[in-house]
Amino acid sequence: MTDPNVPEQLLADCHYLGRLRASAVLLHRNAAVPWFILVPQTQMNDILDLPDDQREAILSECAAVSRFIKQQLGFDKVNFAGLGNVVSAMHLHIIGRHSKDACWPQPVWGNLPEGEFYAPEQLRKWQLSLVKIMALSAAKL
Amino acid sequence: MTDPNVPEQLLADCHYLGRLRASAVLLHRNAAVPWFILVPQTQMNDILDLPDDQREAILSECAAVSRFIKQQLGFDKVNFAGLGNVVSAMHLHIIGRHSKDACWPQPVWGNLPEGEFYAPEQLRKWQLSLVKIMALSAAKL
Repeated sequence: MTDPNVPEQLLADCHYLGRLRASAVLLHRNAAVPWFILVPQTQMNDILDLPDDQREAILSECAAVSRFIKQQLGFDKVNFAGLGNVVSAMHLHIIGRHSKDACWPQPVWGNLPEGEFYAPEQLRKWQLSLVKIMALSAAKL
Repeated sequence: MTDPNVPEQLLADCHYLGRLRASAVLLHRNAAVPWFILVPQTQMNDILDLPDDQREAILSECAAVSRFIKQQLGFDKVNFAGLGNVVSAMHLHIIGRHSKDACWPQPVWGNLPEGEFYAPEQLRKWQLSLVKIMALSAAKL
């Protein structure tokens, strides 16, 4: 999948699941934790620099992904962050965590060991759920 | 300073600068980077679980702190995160970063070496700026 709005490095690290109204939806290839990355359509780098209405539209999509992680995948805890020190283009991390995961309680960045890959049928299943729940415009996996 | 809404561990790690309408404003004692922590008044733990209007009120305050870091302190980059794996009560990190700081490009958590402390006059100066810019209700330092 190519998307001129999504940096190459993120495309290399992630599965591109599709698009919502304000953001592209990626899933990190490391299946140790459900690690979604939303890439908003903006030239700004930092979430807190956005105009209120655009920030709110993007945060609503992040909240929908967080609900998916909690309600559908059964996680109690979600980490949320916009960092961008390595890949500067805005991208927002939404990560399901639990007290038995591979790097709890550390944040995932730099601490999460290599994990399993996702099976293709699992990717399709999650993608289909996102299509149903939040009208994801699905990409070819 | 005591504030029943702010966890003891955060009070131990931070200076309590005061209150905004939706959140208490803390500044991490490690002065290596300007590391603000906002503690919203809520029983929820995860920012993305909040109702839209409450999330937006809190994000507006986070954005105001980010503007302070960029416009008054001269930083180009702000990291933003709600994690809460160690201290579960909701608290949001707003951190000025630059490419010469002590742990760039890593995130600060677990990577930032001990830094200088803030001089009392610097704390008072920043607190006074926040009073002027965003109507912080100042705490006794």
